[in-house]
Amino acid sequence: MQVDSNAVIGKNVDIGIGTIIYGNVEIGDNTVIGPYSIIGEPVAEAYINKEYISRKTIIGKNSIIRSHSILYEDVVIGENFQSGHRITIREKTQIGKNCSIGTLCDLQGDLQIGDYVRLHSNVHVSQKSVIENYVWIYPYVVLTNDPYPPIGELKGVTIKQYAQIATSSVILPGVIVGENSLIGAYTLVRKNVLPERVIVGVPGKDMCSVRELLNDKKERIYPWREYLKDFRGYPWQLNQTSNNENG
Amino acid sequence: MQVDSNAVIGKNVDIGIGTIIYGNVEIGDNTVIGPYSIIGEPVAEAYINKEYISRKTIIGKNSIIRSHSILYEDVVIGENFQSGHRITIREKTQIGKNCSIGTLCDLQGDLQIGDYVRLHSNVHVSQKSVIENYVWIYPYVVLTNDPYPPIGELKGVTIKQYAQIATSSVILPGVIVGENSLIGAYTLVRKNVLPERVIVGVPGKDMCSVRELLNDKKERIYPWREYLKDFRGYPWQLNQTSNNENG
Amino acid sequence: MQVDSNAVIGKNVDIGIGTIIYGNVEIGDNTVIGPYSIIGEPVAEAYINKEYISRKTIIGKNSIIRSHSILYEDVVIGENFQSGHRITIREKTQIGKNCSIGTLCDLQGDLQIGDYVRLHSNVHVSQKSVIENYVWIYPYVVLTNDPYPPIGELKGVTIKQYAQIATSSVILPGVIVGENSLIGAYTLVRKNVLPERVIVGVPGKDMCSVRELLNDKKERIYPWREYLKDFRGYPWQLNQTSNNENG
Repeated sequence: MQVDSNAVIGKNVDIGIGTIIYGNVEIGDNTVIGPYSIIGEPVAEAYINKEYISRKTIIGKNSIIRSHSILYEDVVIGENFQSGHRITIREKTQIGKNCSIGTLCDLQGDLQIGDYVRLHSNVHVSQKSVIENYVWIYPYVVLTNDPYPPIGELKGVTIKQYAQIATSSVILPGVIVGENSLIGAYTLVRKNVLPERVIVGVPGKDMCSVRELLNDKKERIYPWREYLKDFRGYPWQLNQTSNNENG
Repeated sequence: MQVDSNAVIGKNVDIGIGTIIYGNVEIGDNTVIGPYSIIGEPVAEAYINKEYISRKTIIGKNSIIRSHSILYEDVVIGENFQSGHRITIREKTQIGKNCSIGTLCDLQGDLQIGDYVRLHSNVHVSQKSVIENYVWIYPYVVLTNDPYPPIGELKGVTIKQYAQIATSSVILPGVIVGENSLIGAYTLVRKNVLPERVIVGVPGKDMCSVRELLNDKKERIYPWREYLKDFRGYPWQLNQTSNNENG
Repeated sequence: MQVDSNAVIGKNVDIGIGTIIYGNVEIGDNTVIGPYSIIGEPVAEAYINKEYISRKTIIGKNSIIRSHSILYEDVVIGENFQSGHRITIREKTQIGKNCSIGTLCDLQGDLQIGDYVRLHSNVHVSQKSVIENYVWIYPYVVLTNDPYPPIGELKGVTIKQYAQIATSSVILPGVIVGENSLIGAYTLVRKNVLPERVIVGVPGKDMCSVRELLNDKKERIYPWREYLKDFRGYPWQLNQTSNNENG
């Protein structure tokens, strides 16, 4: 265990074997960091500029970060965070409360994630992305940012609240994916998605309203927040405004 | 090396530097576990419930698990297993004999894999999946399970024996992929696949029988078991029944 | 830190905590190897054949290999190399100067990469691949090699110089992707691509010349080398021949 003496470690924090904690790190109470992780990893500039001063990385209380994960400096994560194994979070990342980020997710930094967001395994989030509250994203989805690679005039993707983006989909640069929309598996999203729409295909086509989708029991299941009234302890009663917005 | 004294370690077992072996683990003879792995990782419940008792994880003899891999508790793997680096296998997973699982594969648990199965790098296998004997799956393939995300009324995928699923394909929830079928690269499989059929495209279309495919020498190459009579020491002579089933 | 005494370590080399360096390794001056990496990893044969002699792995000077990376034996990498975290490079790999290989890239060995190549995160490069100078490849791209899986009559992919292959695209076995071409996001490339062409779709279609693409300011941006005259210190002035080849 290699914990820098300048790091601020809360009460009842459990740090795994071999994990490296840099001096710029603050960890909240009752948090677990799995083995062989690196928290507060320096940015590239720190290798060149010996006078470089690292920025703070802060992890909220009651969090679990699983083994072999890497969080750079300048990452701020709210309480009740959970991760899988081997996540990477680069610098200038802000993540809200009660989020879950799966094994092998790759957050490229300079991005914002709201509260109660869940990224399944192996989601790739580019710089300049904005992911709002209650969004779920599934494996091998890519939020892109460069319309003309490798030019680098970056335009981030925005995912509005409650949207679901199913596995292996790609969202092109600058696209806004609307609230409560559903992007089907294996979809290439090239243009903005209106709220509550279902988008499927390569390239993605607007198929119908999410309200037209029924499960095997012929129940309407979307917007999913209305169907899942009691779900994972999500505090729906605190968010009535959002529901009203969608009529 | 941090090996719990309750772990049952066979003869001639080589455990890499830094690898953590929990007390609920049994490792067969002549097995190699690479460095910085974790074997017997506790499930989430163990973090909360201090009275929780871990279930056994058993690794068969003559196996090689490469570095930085994570196997949860309640994983049973047959003999002659080989893995790449950084695989993740979650709880309630059963894997047969002579299997090979590539670098970065992500097995989400609550799933079954037969004998002589080969997963190339970076295959994502969801909960409730069933993969029969002699199936091969290639990089970035996803076996899904949730028809209406994030509702979670899971329907697993079944891959019947000898099927080949080429790179970057996605199989939708509940789909059965037939014996000896070939799913082309970059295919979205939305409905059941009959035995010996070739499926290609987004969405996947049934193109022809696998028996119509010829290599550069105009040889029929599928069903591949008939073409590859002597292949990697596979014990074809022990499995005549399966061949007959397809007429 | 476990560095074999036979390894040749240059001046001012920084080796991270827990990193394993085998005796067949040579590391150039001023290079950084992050924590928990393995350099010179033995091939499968070494597990069976006790008389097996490992081949050399050589890392050029002024390189940074980030944490949890694995480089097998028989890998040669030029100077000024940079990697992300958890890269895997298998045996018989040659990589030129000034390359950058992102987090979680999986290089399957028996392949060649030129100078100034950049692989973003999570690129999968199969055996027999050839990637020429100044190529950039984006996340979840797969260069395949087996036309009839699992038969194994491998045909590698060739990516000619300056080509850009956007995220989640797949290149089928034996395909040659022409110089200065642009493969759009989410494209399945089934046949050879002529120089300076834009390919998009599943299956990929030849849409236009790269010279027809304009940015928001109505500027022609491709061939990108002509637009980005001063880019990341790339030594354009040394490469006039290539430009002339395209007329």
